[in-house]
Amino acid sequence: MKHQNMAMLVDFYEFTMSNGYFKSGFFERNVYFDVFFRSVPDKGGFAIAAGLEQLIEYIKDLHFEDEDIAYLRSKGIFDEGFLDYLKKFRFTGDIYAVPEGTPVFPNEPILTVKAPAIEAQLIETFVLLTLNHQSLIATKANRIVRAAQGRAVLEFGSRRAQGASGAVDGARAAYIGGCAGTACTLTDELYGVPAGGTMAHAWVQMFDSEYEAFKTYCELYPENPTLLVDTYDTLKSGIPNAIKVFLEKGIKKCAIRLDSGDISYLSKKARKMLDAAGLTECGITASNALDEILIRDLMMQGAKVDTFGVGERLITASSSPVFGGVYKLVAVEKLNGEIEPKIKVSENAAKITNPHFKKVYRYFDNESGKALADELCVYDEIVDDSKPHTIFDPNATWKTKTLTDFTAKELLVPVFKGGECVYESPSIQEIADYCREQVDMLWDEVKRFENPHNYYVDLSEQLYQIKNILLKVHKI
Amino acid sequence: MKHQNMAMLVDFYEFTMSNGYFKSGFFERNVYFDVFFRSVPDKGGFAIAAGLEQLIEYIKDLHFEDEDIAYLRSKGIFDEGFLDYLKKFRFTGDIYAVPEGTPVFPNEPILTVKAPAIEAQLIETFVLLTLNHQSLIATKANRIVRAAQGRAVLEFGSRRAQGASGAVDGARAAYIGGCAGTACTLTDELYGVPAGGTMAHAWVQMFDSEYEAFKTYCELYPENPTLLVDTYDTLKSGIPNAIKVFLEKGIKKCAIRLDSGDISYLSKKARKMLDAAGLTECGITASNALDEILIRDLMMQGAKVDTFGVGERLITASSSPVFGGVYKLVAVEKLNGEIEPKIKVSENAAKITNPHFKKVYRYFDNESGKALADELCVYDEIVDDSKPHTIFDPNATWKTKTLTDFTAKELLVPVFKGGECVYESPSIQEIADYCREQVDMLWDEVKRFENPHNYYVDLSEQLYQIKNILLKVHKI
Repeated sequence: MKHQNMAMLVDFYEFTMSNGYFKSGFFERNVYFDVFFRSVPDKGGFAIAAGLEQLIEYIKDLHFEDEDIAYLRSKGIFDEGFLDYLKKFRFTGDIYAVPEGTPVFPNEPILTVKAPAIEAQLIETFVLLTLNHQSLIATKANRIVRAAQGRAVLEFGSRRAQGASGAVDGARAAYIGGCAGTACTLTDELYGVPAGGTMAHAWVQMFDSEYEAFKTYCELYPENPTLLVDTYDTLKSGIPNAIKVFLEKGIKKCAIRLDSGDISYLSKKARKMLDAAGLTECGITASNALDEILIRDLMMQGAKVDTFGVGERLITASSSPVFGGVYKLVAVEKLNGEIEPKIKVSENAAKITNPHFKKVYRYFDNESGKALADELCVYDEIVDDSKPHTIFDPNATWKTKTLTDFTAKELLVPVFKGGECVYESPSIQEIADYCREQVDMLWDEVKRFENPHNYYVDLSEQLYQIKNILLKVHKI
Repeated sequence: MKHQNMAMLVDFYEFTMSNGYFKSGFFERNVYFDVFFRSVPDKGGFAIAAGLEQLIEYIKDLHFEDEDIAYLRSKGIFDEGFLDYLKKFRFTGDIYAVPEGTPVFPNEPILTVKAPAIEAQLIETFVLLTLNHQSLIATKANRIVRAAQGRAVLEFGSRRAQGASGAVDGARAAYIGGCAGTACTLTDELYGVPAGGTMAHAWVQMFDSEYEAFKTYCELYPENPTLLVDTYDTLKSGIPNAIKVFLEKGIKKCAIRLDSGDISYLSKKARKMLDAAGLTECGITASNALDEILIRDLMMQGAKVDTFGVGERLITASSSPVFGGVYKLVAVEKLNGEIEPKIKVSENAAKITNPHFKKVYRYFDNESGKALADELCVYDEIVDDSKPHTIFDPNATWKTKTLTDFTAKELLVPVFKGGECVYESPSIQEIADYCREQVDMLWDEVKRFENPHNYYVDLSEQLYQIKNILLKVHKI
């Protein structure tokens, strides 16, 4: 979705700081920022990274219009030199990111920016909101899809989304996380996520009878029609009318949708009624305030549902609606070009950052194909996976593990180099496939809904030492 | 915020139904839809209606582009006549709505659409998502602002919003609900909501010392600077450095911001340190995962906070992130022009709709000025507030109340007539003022956070009879 003026979707303090950098000589000094998050929504074991494609579009298009400059000037606090600089503003830095659909873990960079201070600062808000939003929804969708154990999950939530991009970009993220399609037409038109839909209650009410509404619909759309059966009375009216019409029209490939009442009970009753009428190919779709917890329960109760339509609880990730990605300064380039690592200390230990310009390795076991651990390394470290490699837990340094017969994969790939986009976004289908493959490479224990196994995100020996030295320096 | 292609932000079934209406002769038949909600988020006593201005912009601009028609044609299920019709599509109907900032209650229409069936259907998704989103955030903001008891509340949540419009339109809604400003620059530029902001941790880290960072900032922005004091150590480093710089520069009007740690404890300590240095005018701003519950607790503990910055828990309404507005058919115009009321029955009694084209009265007590009850009436009923008027509870019809010395006010005002906008949106400041006045006219019992008093939304005798007749007709 193209928005006007996304360059101005900025927290105001980015402008006050940037104006300050401009006037105090940090103008062209390169800085390094990491995006990372501290915990997975819903206390899950991992998140799914998403939103990079919209971030790329934003960076490519990034500029300020005359009216934006005039607006800023009206505030009376910005230097004319700075406003002049903004007129010619373009992003000239480097960006590294994990590809969309990658399972990611707390405290590891999922995106790193290297750019002159002002550029790095002015993109903060949009970078975070895009990655936070889409990663939130992709992560939630993946939970729901896993609960459905192979039954299709469709995204139905536009009307309850938090704004237009919440709906449109959210449906895109839901597809990355594993949904089979969406009700949102614009997401299909813009991004190629398959959209579908048949009828609301209004269609049924518009006609003099439910039967007539169903008959008319099946005449218009004889190919795989889905009839909504709960407008008046699901078992006494909706399903009998649907069966009558399907039989009269000789339609075998079809479905009914249950949108209220006890889905488990109604779906079993419906299955029996449909089968008794010979409509064994007629599918059953269920909607109505579903999420992974309800779907898991429905599956356990043997509900006869083939497709789940999930609305508000997916599109707002309602049980845990915030993805807490942050954007933290990790290094500053000195005048001599040397990279000086920076740390953010905090009274809250969990808020202390991992300093320096880094790379992230993911180690896969060659025998099982499963992901074993991630390791954060200094940007120029190289891990040779043809040799044994020992990793350790930075929170319990005596816990070590020596990896043998493994493959090391770098997670962060170059996306922008010197302001030029060097990354070609895969198709939405490729991203969704990649996500499924990568999630399959996680141990089941990491995928557990409650108390998942804590996947290891370790620091290299070199990075660990740098962090400890900086912590000592800042101890007051 | 202008988006491309909002006409296509539609649930796909609106197109399948509309194509069906087109082919089955409901083409130009007027229908009536109500928007209403069934419960208030956070179990509150009332909601704040918001989003109408963006809805108006959407309706004014509503049209389909050639590429949209081509996309729909590619689906292979739509009639060419229907696609032709879409090419010339404009909204030609009537819309009535409650003004933004109005306190509203479950089961009363906050918006009514009268339009030819296809038009009414195709706007459903966007109407709902806009009103749901902004009403959600305005309602949440109003809770937070009430908890702050006169201290300023600023909206800081863009980076955690669910998408770009979540941030930009959300900050607008937060202002309607009572926030004093936002960090979102674009919301200021587009809507005139005052944006502000000073520095992030990155500013402090960029300099060789915290002192130098603060000094440079105060030189650049000597008017009312706010210094962020928790980058290294709030009490041992941040506040002492801030005091040193304020005193050196002779700045009296200023503030510090606490963004981590125990806000209650730190703010009291900070207040003492600032006062002891003679900086009695220096304000204290607090941020860090705040909401109405935490703010109420901080106030009770006597925290010395002058301004609250509220981020993710406001911009996503995280404790209750869905506003469940629905769009239900309530009447259909017959060929002879008669309005035929329609009802949606459900196995769940709470899901049964109030039929018919309606008006909504709010009754105010002339002595106290307080709102007493709302009453849903048939569109052509008139309540004369110069005479006593008896209302009754539709769920307990023996409970009646006779109003005397009261003023009746119609809540729904004309917004579109025959496709023309007849409503002039007030300024954002006027809307926020109106909201404050109207909330003041509710009894405190309705404003309670837990178990609020259930405000009466009654049905007129005439409407009650119509509803009961329809319920009997549809009983199977």
